[in-house]
Amino acid sequence: MAVNDGGAPFEARLSEIAASTEALLDRLLGPGPAAGERIRPARLLDAMRYASLGGGKRFRPFLVVESAALFAVPRERSLMAAAALECVHCYSLVHDDLPAMDNDDLRRGRPTLHKAFDEATAVLVGDSLLTFAFDILARPETHPDPAIRVALVLGLARAAGLGGMAGGQMLDLAAEGRFAAAAMQLGLPDVEQLQAMKTGALLRYGCVAGAILGGADEHKQIALDRFGAVIGEAFQIADDLLDVEGDAATVGKATGKDAGARKATAVRILGVAQAKKKLFGLIDQAESALTPFGADAALLKSAARFVAERRA
Amino acid sequence: MAVNDGGAPFEARLSEIAASTEALLDRLLGPGPAAGERIRPARLLDAMRYASLGGGKRFRPFLVVESAALFAVPRERSLMAAAALECVHCYSLVHDDLPAMDNDDLRRGRPTLHKAFDEATAVLVGDSLLTFAFDILARPETHPDPAIRVALVLGLARAAGLGGMAGGQMLDLAAEGRFAAAAMQLGLPDVEQLQAMKTGALLRYGCVAGAILGGADEHKQIALDRFGAVIGEAFQIADDLLDVEGDAATVGKATGKDAGARKATAVRILGVAQAKKKLFGLIDQAESALTPFGADAALLKSAARFVAERRA
Repeated sequence: MAVNDGGAPFEARLSEIAASTEALLDRLLGPGPAAGERIRPARLLDAMRYASLGGGKRFRPFLVVESAALFAVPRERSLMAAAALECVHCYSLVHDDLPAMDNDDLRRGRPTLHKAFDEATAVLVGDSLLTFAFDILARPETHPDPAIRVALVLGLARAAGLGGMAGGQMLDLAAEGRFAAAAMQLGLPDVEQLQAMKTGALLRYGCVAGAILGGADEHKQIALDRFGAVIGEAFQIADDLLDVEGDAATVGKATGKDAGARKATAVRILGVAQAKKKLFGLIDQAESALTPFGADAALLKSAARFVAERRA
Repeated sequence: MAVNDGGAPFEARLSEIAASTEALLDRLLGPGPAAGERIRPARLLDAMRYASLGGGKRFRPFLVVESAALFAVPRERSLMAAAALECVHCYSLVHDDLPAMDNDDLRRGRPTLHKAFDEATAVLVGDSLLTFAFDILARPETHPDPAIRVALVLGLARAAGLGGMAGGQMLDLAAEGRFAAAAMQLGLPDVEQLQAMKTGALLRYGCVAGAILGGADEHKQIALDRFGAVIGEAFQIADDLLDVEGDAATVGKATGKDAGARKATAVRILGVAQAKKKLFGLIDQAESALTPFGADAALLKSAARFVAERRA
């Protein structure tokens, strides 16, 4: 494994894109109303802002913006797609934290939305952020070509829906034994499929969205799709390793929880040593996938290392 | 008020469009997976089908299909938009019925989704149906022109989101006193705004979607927008009258509930007699809005009467 000497520029870019995404979401989630809206009810807007502003690494926006940058897509366009994807990510956190789902009280070191507000508001905030993501993608500011905007919409819907993220959450609840007498003993292929849907689909979409925005040829679109898929898998293994090895103060949420709830993870099946080996193999694959882009993809390569080595 | 002599053809068309919408949703919600999906988890798919198949008048699909028919839009296209809108309507019922929201056990004479399945599944079903609506609209089968598809997406997002349906539900919960010591005493303008968002926005979108699909000129698009807005308002008043005057066996859900929960309704503010007068005034306005379409709009005019006179 190579020494990660690209850390500093990568982290600077990650922070910069996070700040730009935050600023854009802050503007998009202003008091409005936009055309076709009546009013934006204050409580709902406040809660949507609580759920989507105020932090997070914004790794998905980074993937969109840096993938799009390979095709010289203007930043103001890629940030729109990045903001839409982040809305979907934030909605999923709000709904997954609900008492009926994972029942979490803490997220990024703050009370979860249903704790800070209430459950009904949390349901509506998730619904509204999900809806808002498609609103953002459909706007001409995202791209002047409607064919590109509608391709972004279709891709996001597939990544987030019943055959993607939402379906993955359903598989995860089933694996926990939520709908049966006992937790299911999933094999590695089942766990990988679950994670590819629950976590991987949105990360992968982030990379593909950049290719769509950039009008990439099929060869490059497939390369970014491959990169996204591998990064998604690596991200989840790194997350599971963090859960085993991290501490709550660093991670900002309860750790060791997955083992307690018998969550289906690759780390549980493979053990820590084998999981780490797999993780670094995936990082190598991610770097290989970027070969067609040469030196332009240096920051995306750093991102792969970041995923593997992050501590929180 | 004219005698409603268009009832029989209208009801036949309503049934026919309902059956076609049902058949299309049945096909779209097949075992899949579609491109970009991994698998469609069986429990989630079953629950999505429970929520979206098996009945309902499909009045929103009727509005889409008949508005589109004014422009000779092929039925297979307008049914796609109709199915998407119905997915949003069905998602909203599933989430509104949740214990944290309106806590209903019965819907269309059947157990609500969280009763038939469980709360976590109900959250995911709503999320997945909402996401699926945008998936459907973004497909080339809906319309070959991506500019039209993306206009449908933007319109639906605005109608369903924080400045539309979801925002209306938030206002409704607030009016009940959910976030304060006591219920709010709303005036008629506030109630009308609440209902225009909660119920009206989707009905209105149904009519506008037909105009978008048909590439309507601005004059006709505005006419259908106006028709949809008025129909939406009439629909809600009729619904509130049914709640006061109907019986549970006919309506298929608990009645008299709104008064108990001190729901904000125009009927409560105006009284039954004045509300009926307002309702029939709205129906006249709806018919006037259709003037530019002449005899072609006969069935939409019947729909306005249907809204006012329905008993369930």
